[in-house]
Amino acid sequence: MKIAIVGAGALGLYYGAMLQRAGQDVRFLLRRDFEAISREGLKVKSINGDFHLKQVQGFRDPAEMGKVDLVIVGLKTFANQHMDELVRPLLGEDSAILTLQNGLGNEELLAGLFGAERVLGGIAFLCSNRGEPGTVLHLGQGHIRLGEFSGGLSSRASDLAALLSSAAVPCEAVTDLARARWEKLVWNIPFNGLCALTGKDVTELLGHGPSRQQVRYLMQEVVAGANAQGLSEPIAAAFVEKMIEFTDGMDHYQPSMMLDRLEGRPLELDAIYGQPLARAEKAGVDLPLVRMLHALLELGEEH
Amino acid sequence: MKIAIVGAGALGLYYGAMLQRAGQDVRFLLRRDFEAISREGLKVKSINGDFHLKQVQGFRDPAEMGKVDLVIVGLKTFANQHMDELVRPLLGEDSAILTLQNGLGNEELLAGLFGAERVLGGIAFLCSNRGEPGTVLHLGQGHIRLGEFSGGLSSRASDLAALLSSAAVPCEAVTDLARARWEKLVWNIPFNGLCALTGKDVTELLGHGPSRQQVRYLMQEVVAGANAQGLSEPIAAAFVEKMIEFTDGMDHYQPSMMLDRLEGRPLELDAIYGQPLARAEKAGVDLPLVRMLHALLELGEEH
Repeated sequence: MKIAIVGAGALGLYYGAMLQRAGQDVRFLLRRDFEAISREGLKVKSINGDFHLKQVQGFRDPAEMGKVDLVIVGLKTFANQHMDELVRPLLGEDSAILTLQNGLGNEELLAGLFGAERVLGGIAFLCSNRGEPGTVLHLGQGHIRLGEFSGGLSSRASDLAALLSSAAVPCEAVTDLARARWEKLVWNIPFNGLCALTGKDVTELLGHGPSRQQVRYLMQEVVAGANAQGLSEPIAAAFVEKMIEFTDGMDHYQPSMMLDRLEGRPLELDAIYGQPLARAEKAGVDLPLVRMLHALLELGEEH
Repeated sequence: MKIAIVGAGALGLYYGAMLQRAGQDVRFLLRRDFEAISREGLKVKSINGDFHLKQVQGFRDPAEMGKVDLVIVGLKTFANQHMDELVRPLLGEDSAILTLQNGLGNEELLAGLFGAERVLGGIAFLCSNRGEPGTVLHLGQGHIRLGEFSGGLSSRASDLAALLSSAAVPCEAVTDLARARWEKLVWNIPFNGLCALTGKDVTELLGHGPSRQQVRYLMQEVVAGANAQGLSEPIAAAFVEKMIEFTDGMDHYQPSMMLDRLEGRPLELDAIYGQPLARAEKAGVDLPLVRMLHALLELGEEH
């Protein structure tokens, strides 16, 4: 299968590498890593064992990449204004698009630009960071939950889940993508924001009793917002404790938004905070702690 | 009148200088500024006009200062564990103690150590910072509201207010010190904490719409906590807007807690957050936004 990776940060590089290693025809749209990868290929340093792809198809310009069967979008959402120019040249008549971006609103954007029938969304549970150019660090996890933007379980989604699973990326097709996205927000909203705001990693955050309690309160707000969205099944209250215990197992992990702030990049605030807050408000649910966190993160973006 | 200044930071130096200039016998307990002041005296750079006190009585050891009529305490509350050793040597039979420290719990500490009958509390509305050693910068405001820890309006409190006013420190004696302290917390809780947490000054904070709204929400919580304390008169809802407008007039002021964090000093978290939260909780009032702010500030103190 011809697959294009658009937005080759830690996530795009990792999943693209896994798919290429499994025999797929993968083409990476690169910026920072173009020269290093052209010269030396792509190195994956993974808790599951390192590997090195010596020949990698890297491009700077989407017009040179050719049409593909599947576009995987891993762009940071603050770069979403470039979506049209980056993705359109890659689309043939039946090309599908899978966005693995964070937060809410990305499928809607792609559907508006290219047609809802092309669009799938996925939630990546991946701990990965970029290393030096040409190297991606896989620190933990990696599974994906994906589904059709238009809802329901398609054979296309099932096939794609099977393809990823066969590439050692455990993947599950879900019928209710919106529910899966909100579940991920239960994690992303407290941890991304609190770590970015305070400069503390998840282990430091959870090791401080009062902050651990704030994580819990924030998660409870997100669950309330989620359960007002008409999901196929509500998110259970117990999911909060499950997410906290899951995170206890991450050894000093620094979420992407924390790294973005430390390294002076913009934050994915609209996708992870703005859109969920607007949807909760529209459903009549107030999320005062999430709103405060959003305001303070946004303040930090003012220069 | 013999007056000792204990805790000669920006606040203690400024008020001590004003009292000495007005002819009082002022003795400063110094640490950082001892050498500079011994050599060159104390310089006040003030929006009301600079002045220079060439002869200043500075001490390193309270045992050398002699007994005084009035001890003014300007210590940072995180140094409160030294209160006994710093203040006891200064007390004669009728000495009074006026604490101008931030937050709640300071009068109670002094009353427990030295007797409630000695203790007055005051709220200082002062924008001042330390300059280089031997210099204090007076940026704005300066008035004081003071009252008896035991409540009611004493002639001692009125006399002290008159003394300060005659030294060009506008001062008002109040009957309900607890109410005055909570009023000050309506300002301190949002601005000290949000500026320390985000590294933004009050003007940047209020210039960002969503953060300005958070200031308002935080103030509303503090007013609710205050009005559950059995004050002589409730704090009106309109007080919140008054405080915000008052702060609009401060040009890029950096509250003391922000400077403490920027300069790596501990923060006055117990007096400004821990004690008010505990008293609100005891009165059955939940302050979820204040609690979140407290938790995140405390997390930043973990090293």
